[in-house]
Amino acid sequence: MKAVVFDNELKLVNDYEKPVPQPGEALVRVTLAGICNTDYEITKGYMGYVGILGHEAVGVVEEVNGEDKSLVGKRVVPEISYGCKDPDCPWCAEKMYRHCPNRHTLGIWRKDGVFAQYFTMPTEVLFEVPDNVPDRQAVFVEPLAAALEITEQHHIKPFEKVVVLGDGKLGLITALALNAQNIDVILVGKHQNKLDIAKAQGVKVALLNDFAIEKKYDVVVEATGSISGFETALALTKPRGVLVLKSTVAASKEFNLAPIVIDEITVLGSRCGQFPAALRLLQSGKVDFSPLISATYGVDNALAGFEKNKEKDTLKVLLDFQEKSTRLKVKNTL
Amino acid sequence: MKAVVFDNELKLVNDYEKPVPQPGEALVRVTLAGICNTDYEITKGYMGYVGILGHEAVGVVEEVNGEDKSLVGKRVVPEISYGCKDPDCPWCAEKMYRHCPNRHTLGIWRKDGVFAQYFTMPTEVLFEVPDNVPDRQAVFVEPLAAALEITEQHHIKPFEKVVVLGDGKLGLITALALNAQNIDVILVGKHQNKLDIAKAQGVKVALLNDFAIEKKYDVVVEATGSISGFETALALTKPRGVLVLKSTVAASKEFNLAPIVIDEITVLGSRCGQFPAALRLLQSGKVDFSPLISATYGVDNALAGFEKNKEKDTLKVLLDFQEKSTRLKVKNTL
Repeated sequence: MKAVVFDNELKLVNDYEKPVPQPGEALVRVTLAGICNTDYEITKGYMGYVGILGHEAVGVVEEVNGEDKSLVGKRVVPEISYGCKDPDCPWCAEKMYRHCPNRHTLGIWRKDGVFAQYFTMPTEVLFEVPDNVPDRQAVFVEPLAAALEITEQHHIKPFEKVVVLGDGKLGLITALALNAQNIDVILVGKHQNKLDIAKAQGVKVALLNDFAIEKKYDVVVEATGSISGFETALALTKPRGVLVLKSTVAASKEFNLAPIVIDEITVLGSRCGQFPAALRLLQSGKVDFSPLISATYGVDNALAGFEKNKEKDTLKVLLDFQEKSTRLKVKNTL
Repeated sequence: MKAVVFDNELKLVNDYEKPVPQPGEALVRVTLAGICNTDYEITKGYMGYVGILGHEAVGVVEEVNGEDKSLVGKRVVPEISYGCKDPDCPWCAEKMYRHCPNRHTLGIWRKDGVFAQYFTMPTEVLFEVPDNVPDRQAVFVEPLAAALEITEQHHIKPFEKVVVLGDGKLGLITALALNAQNIDVILVGKHQNKLDIAKAQGVKVALLNDFAIEKKYDVVVEATGSISGFETALALTKPRGVLVLKSTVAASKEFNLAPIVIDEITVLGSRCGQFPAALRLLQSGKVDFSPLISATYGVDNALAGFEKNKEKDTLKVLLDFQEKSTRLKVKNTL
């Protein structure tokens, strides 16, 4: 099968061995996948991962190795990790596979990813996509679940004020997701054209240059992926407020921890989330991620898709793994 | 009056003007005061403060400017800050003066400190010391309140495991305070002689070199004041656990924020606390801070006390402001 592999270099492999589902696993034929910045970080050495890349995908179950075949033929999205399934593992017992110390994570850690014509995953981490949610929305379920993770970890009260800092993919998805849940959120970024995507769906937005930097927000989501963004986020968080840290950039820079202590800020690391709430939100139609799609590339042009992803104005680049779609297709360009 | 002043240099001033209590304030005659590392940081430029240093003290109220004279003659300790008292200030309404944006903080920010024969403070931030608590215990009430602040900010559940990292003053006081509240805590440090102080009061202790660095603790209190300590603390905090950051050191160093995100750690900045719970714990006799007193200096030798405070093995240095105590007195030396 065709697969996008990182093995010291990024390459398209045309004869990668098709995976065989192990007991409890399903074989999924990929239709559409999304490039995440984590994939790009991996090509720079993040996590030391070697194998098929990718963890954002929609596909159709072709086969299940197990008694319950009910998923066969269903359109599904895979959660990013699966756990050890040891009955004594407290993380697996709570379905919090993403923190199981012996987890496998699609395209990141000990598990081939989804940038291929097929992948396998345990059936308990495959979620059926509602009929009214097209592939190009469903492919956003993983980053949407990551945005909703904030509301799993921290109770945002109805009267609280939230800033999402950064108008890239992560910031846009987070602002759209929080706004769709009636949370008082403003998206602050540097690019009017990106802010306008959120504004068109009713989100309050502001250009960073026009935005007063005051310590008055209850919750500030750092979604710029930069240390200077972290410092701005700190300057916006009120005493005893919460700064949500979403970015896993490997970069580091000097900075002073004292403001966290003086203002008793809570810095909340936040990563992936569970899928049911994300699928519910997609099903409701309260969010529309199609304006975030900068381009869609057929599998044979996948490496060009990675190049496109590096461009400054690119938001989401999709990879189409269906046989018919081997040519470059650009749906939107910001 | 005699006062220890920082004004680009640290000096003892013999004829500093005695303060006059403003309406609502009391005049307090200092008996005993404690040097905190923040005082030392200020002499290196922290906060840009100029004035009388010090915020840890016990004294006797000599005068109150106000109708209610009930505090006159009472032995008291001052909270570290007082607020703007504006009826619209939400922080002052909750007696959380330490976060009021227009606060004054003893010896740190817009308010002369306690390293003098007299200071003034609003009566609402003066707390009477129980009769059975001697001055040399009461002088620890401010750092003890700061330790208890952790339990105000975060609910430590009875089955959770806590590490306090660092066996300086802050770590010892925090470990003693948490242990006295029946919390499952272990103090980890580099100095057996300091660890033994906590051990003698029933705290579990371990030398860092003998302590397995595993991500399995629910709450880890960073009390080393160093970035390497912060990194060790991160390596001890379980996924979704809480790393309490207590230190306001101005130093900074490169480090990677990604582990906070990957393990969804909560980094909780924690500073000063309210006094009633601290006084209650002192009154109960469940903690004894006298073994932490490395030396006591009379006011005329205060600068020598600051030198003593810099020594590696020193824990708490006290300053005795009573007239009779102008000579150097060394009570304990570790």
